[in-house]
Amino acid sequence: MSLVTKPTVIFPEHEVSQDQMVNVLKELFPYHPKWDTVERMIRNTQVDHRNLLSPIDQVITHPGFEYRNKLYKDHGLKMASRVAKQVLDDNKMTPNDIDMLMVVSCTGFLMPSLTSYIISDLGFRPNTKQLPVAQLGCAAGAWALNRAYEYIKAYPDHNVLLLSVEFSSLLFQPEDSKISSLISNCLFGDAVSGCIIKGAYEDGDEGYLIEGIDSFVKKDSDHYIKYDVKSTGFHFGLDKEVMHSIKDVAPIMKGLIKDECEKEINDLDFHLFHTGGRKILDELVSNLDLVEENVSKSRQSLKNHGNIASGVVLDVLNKEFESKTRKNGDTGMMAAFGPGFTAEINHGTWIKN
Amino acid sequence: MSLVTKPTVIFPEHEVSQDQMVNVLKELFPYHPKWDTVERMIRNTQVDHRNLLSPIDQVITHPGFEYRNKLYKDHGLKMASRVAKQVLDDNKMTPNDIDMLMVVSCTGFLMPSLTSYIISDLGFRPNTKQLPVAQLGCAAGAWALNRAYEYIKAYPDHNVLLLSVEFSSLLFQPEDSKISSLISNCLFGDAVSGCIIKGAYEDGDEGYLIEGIDSFVKKDSDHYIKYDVKSTGFHFGLDKEVMHSIKDVAPIMKGLIKDECEKEINDLDFHLFHTGGRKILDELVSNLDLVEENVSKSRQSLKNHGNIASGVVLDVLNKEFESKTRKNGDTGMMAAFGPGFTAEINHGTWIKN
Repeated sequence: MSLVTKPTVIFPEHEVSQDQMVNVLKELFPYHPKWDTVERMIRNTQVDHRNLLSPIDQVITHPGFEYRNKLYKDHGLKMASRVAKQVLDDNKMTPNDIDMLMVVSCTGFLMPSLTSYIISDLGFRPNTKQLPVAQLGCAAGAWALNRAYEYIKAYPDHNVLLLSVEFSSLLFQPEDSKISSLISNCLFGDAVSGCIIKGAYEDGDEGYLIEGIDSFVKKDSDHYIKYDVKSTGFHFGLDKEVMHSIKDVAPIMKGLIKDECEKEINDLDFHLFHTGGRKILDELVSNLDLVEENVSKSRQSLKNHGNIASGVVLDVLNKEFESKTRKNGDTGMMAAFGPGFTAEINHGTWIKN
Repeated sequence: MSLVTKPTVIFPEHEVSQDQMVNVLKELFPYHPKWDTVERMIRNTQVDHRNLLSPIDQVITHPGFEYRNKLYKDHGLKMASRVAKQVLDDNKMTPNDIDMLMVVSCTGFLMPSLTSYIISDLGFRPNTKQLPVAQLGCAAGAWALNRAYEYIKAYPDHNVLLLSVEFSSLLFQPEDSKISSLISNCLFGDAVSGCIIKGAYEDGDEGYLIEGIDSFVKKDSDHYIKYDVKSTGFHFGLDKEVMHSIKDVAPIMKGLIKDECEKEINDLDFHLFHTGGRKILDELVSNLDLVEENVSKSRQSLKNHGNIASGVVLDVLNKEFESKTRKNGDTGMMAAFGPGFTAEINHGTWIKN
């Protein structure tokens, strides 16, 4: 049984408000032909502020793919190590207790991957299994929890450490004035997060016990959410068609909860939804007939941090822990969406003994 | 129980002999101060010829990271689809029979990944689970089989399709005259391969039944086998210290076979070793006191194709199938080595009913 314990989510120090962002982009593209539309859409993101790896004047310059990837490695390793130590401490565990280390991260590329560096630097066992994933974007957090669920089904007393390292600000492309890119520049935030998924949990443990999982790939949707890979690094691309994916995945989400929990989604006690963006959350509310309260923690995460990619579901889960309103036996679900269009879904029960 | 069935391994059409390679590099670096050493070391690779994605005069020019990544995507998708169809046919299966699709590939970067494209293009079920891995280099083939073993332990009647897509020629860096880089340019070959790992196998099935697995990460070895990520793409780096890794992993390999099979490695009937390069195989022979015959299929793969990265273990396994000498109940092992230094090891029994 996979018990997802309390996540740690940390943010780099440089905070930027959406007002600042509007001014910065206006200065960068003073003659943008559609500036009024751009500004209106930025205001509509419902992002209030975000934390970025570097001061904003550095974010908007491009020091080269190589330098950015070096920043990614240095800060990624430092922050991921901090998160790893924190969640180990919180669980009264040592690196020795971890059987598999997952690192999900789509905003830089390393080989060897961070899994290898962390196993070596933090003194994990040399036989710790590695699962580094770079290609599942915003879906990767929920994806990793689903894979941890499967792994623990095979090894019921094993423990998995999941780390999410996302520095979307390293993908800022100052030459790119497409409306969708300017909006994306104001949507994504930087964060490093992680949690431990325990196989054999004990009295006193609290967490989200995953009890069922599902996956979804939408046919012919490769252009919805994607990277173009160039000498300047990864160029994030978003097609507005992506909004129509939610109507395709909604029946699958409903079906899973109906079939496995004999409930409607609104009847669940907690909802751990990826933020995507404001419109994705609106589409969820509309297609699942959700009570607005059920997306409130996702909206709050979006407002305060922007979309922190694979880390969003951990941030929303963390808010459930911090709200201290969850009771033993509460039922809930998680869903995240990413490139492809891909969705990863799970459901389970809150454990609090 | 995970039965690894007969792999398909396909090669792009452009063959280059090591003699041609020597001439091409000599022309590219006519005044290389250490040319005699370079030529001697190239001759020592024991690679006879390799197949590359493009004619050699195109391989040695750099059309840009973006263009190369486009070649990677177009050819990768085309060849991986061909391999997927072939192994499905060989197993009398349809895409509907596959529960998880793994794509391992370290010579290009795509988001969405090839898993997503293949699920969509070939009509796999929308709920097919994706496992794309880009950061485990040459270890990724054996790594994926180990993860498939775990997955099938959780879902005993599921089937996994594994595809390996490796076009190392897309990493040729014409500006790089380091001796180790020139040797690497003559060592790695391009190939796409794949196989199906069956949960519930039937009478008449033949294959390698994995019965035990192990993983290893060597401390402080991140510089042994690595990429530098630059605007010109991935730059492969190899430190000769890597040779010393085999002495560290050898006891772990011996231990696994001793503990779980109560045998010595030479007592096993077949050996599916990653080729690495000639010296890695020599180190294996030396540190494991191997009978030379036990690395012969790996040496043959190296000679005819070069090191095809994550695909090597599938090519060597394929040679076991094609040799038709394996009997039901034969015991064997697999080991592959990659960035980090990372090793993935497994052992099992040949099934032939």
